[in-house]
Amino acid sequence: MSTSQGSSLIGDDAAILPAAGPLAVTVDSQIEGVHFVPDLDPALVARRLLAVNLSDLAAMGADPAWAFLALSAPAGFDHDRFLRAFSEACRAHGVTLAGGDLARCDRLVATATLIGTKPDERQWLRRDGARPGQALWLGGTVGESAVGRLLIARGARPGRGASARLVRLPADLPPSLSKAARCAVRRHLSPVPQIELGRWLGSHDMAMAAMDVSDGVARDLHRLCRESGAGAEILAESLPLSYRYFDLCKVLRVDPFELALTGGEDYVLMFTLPEDVKPPDSFGCRRIGSIRKRSGVTWVEDGRRRKLAASGWDHLVDLPPAT
Amino acid sequence: MSTSQGSSLIGDDAAILPAAGPLAVTVDSQIEGVHFVPDLDPALVARRLLAVNLSDLAAMGADPAWAFLALSAPAGFDHDRFLRAFSEACRAHGVTLAGGDLARCDRLVATATLIGTKPDERQWLRRDGARPGQALWLGGTVGESAVGRLLIARGARPGRGASARLVRLPADLPPSLSKAARCAVRRHLSPVPQIELGRWLGSHDMAMAAMDVSDGVARDLHRLCRESGAGAEILAESLPLSYRYFDLCKVLRVDPFELALTGGEDYVLMFTLPEDVKPPDSFGCRRIGSIRKRSGVTWVEDGRRRKLAASGWDHLVDLPPAT
Repeated sequence: MSTSQGSSLIGDDAAILPAAGPLAVTVDSQIEGVHFVPDLDPALVARRLLAVNLSDLAAMGADPAWAFLALSAPAGFDHDRFLRAFSEACRAHGVTLAGGDLARCDRLVATATLIGTKPDERQWLRRDGARPGQALWLGGTVGESAVGRLLIARGARPGRGASARLVRLPADLPPSLSKAARCAVRRHLSPVPQIELGRWLGSHDMAMAAMDVSDGVARDLHRLCRESGAGAEILAESLPLSYRYFDLCKVLRVDPFELALTGGEDYVLMFTLPEDVKPPDSFGCRRIGSIRKRSGVTWVEDGRRRKLAASGWDHLVDLPPAT
Repeated sequence: MSTSQGSSLIGDDAAILPAAGPLAVTVDSQIEGVHFVPDLDPALVARRLLAVNLSDLAAMGADPAWAFLALSAPAGFDHDRFLRAFSEACRAHGVTLAGGDLARCDRLVATATLIGTKPDERQWLRRDGARPGQALWLGGTVGESAVGRLLIARGARPGRGASARLVRLPADLPPSLSKAARCAVRRHLSPVPQIELGRWLGSHDMAMAAMDVSDGVARDLHRLCRESGAGAEILAESLPLSYRYFDLCKVLRVDPFELALTGGEDYVLMFTLPEDVKPPDSFGCRRIGSIRKRSGVTWVEDGRRRKLAASGWDHLVDLPPAT
């Protein structure tokens, strides 16, 4: 007769963690109709939920250690498929699924709490360490995830089970863009957290800042600058963009730079480094600009300098040339 | 342009906890239409969310330390009121709200992750320590919360703001039951986690088991017995019931014992102790039976012994007299 329909996933009322040092803790949700289209394969939702949380731990330079899951799902939801995929993804990242809570809800809402550790010699990555003169970097391309989201809104759908790598595309998409479009949909649905890059960044004793790009470069860079009491300048030509990104944006009728800067859900790390430091090439990072003393974010395109608001393009304001 | 509408409540991508010993971690959700009626005062939802999680930590004998909040709410939701109430309730319990995630959803879904610590000399409370011969205890009355839920289903509503202690009752309720009915509604909406009792239990080096009753005595006692590899016997006359509980059940046309055993959301601790140990009277605990070697739960009423299923009354089976 309980209305809660709740049950603990594992053993006791709470999980006991053998914590022996400081921990990084992050919480993120995936909500049907908000973060993903209804009827998406539960296995994809599960893996995405873990990935977006892992990305937060990557941005701290943490080693992922434990996960807790709160899953609210409608009657008929394939819990087994979700839980199996979540558990497998946890195992693949060395994460122990240590507890959780299941409930009935007519809308799928999945929340994960992830806890990470670090060796003593590694430093936590913070948002407040950006200093004028540092270089600004991105861990990978931006905008592709947003292209994937737009394609899904236009009817693109991922395959299920054994055909999970296949993506059904909108019929009006030029065949020459199929490959790039499929990559974009997969990039959106299955982001790859940059845990190794986070570890590398934390393992070097240097002044720096880092965060993951989840709400778009514009918004997140404003956050990083605000926390650091600094500003930044981005060069349009340096922005890392995916294969045939401009062509896809043209078909989708969106401004490619606006989407790259404000689309969000990129889940790459954005970080600053001293001018003379460069991450190993294997991470595929790209320097996109510099940290400046003057607050705010400046967008430099074809020699033209404009102020980039946190909300992106709508509020672009021409700036005088840099002095 | 991000669809996530998400934002970190505080600072970095993850919170850093200065953990120096083992931690207890628990996750629980409160969902509109599942755990509470739509349009309930956001402050009540916030406090209830914290309380049900604190109850899990109480059941571990933990000191509540940090909270993480994932809040998915529809447009127009009074976030300020929710967050203020949640923060205040955290402060009142010595809990630091250390991070979280806000998202848009047409259904209010609030999930909290709570992390607790303990002094070295205290033991964690577990479900698997029940041994034949131990006494079985409840930390408070059961069934009253379920009565409150039934009253709410029949139209009872709590006051808001300054009148939060007032409860509007269904018109057909006999005036003589008003006080008891208001208590039941408040008990349902504002459970009081038994943190001090949990601390007391964990501070004594003795064989025992403990958990909190969230899904009903029947279901949760079956869990405790299963984890411990034992069984239990409950005496009907010992079950702690609230003021005018039987009268309220009569008006609501429910079986009082069935509701007490299966209603759930009681959030009192259920625990076992050696025969010669008794908790301080100030906690208001009641001994309700004993742990037995034979598996399963036996219900003893007027000398009649019946098997009590996890699901409660539907499956009551007459048992032969105890030998």
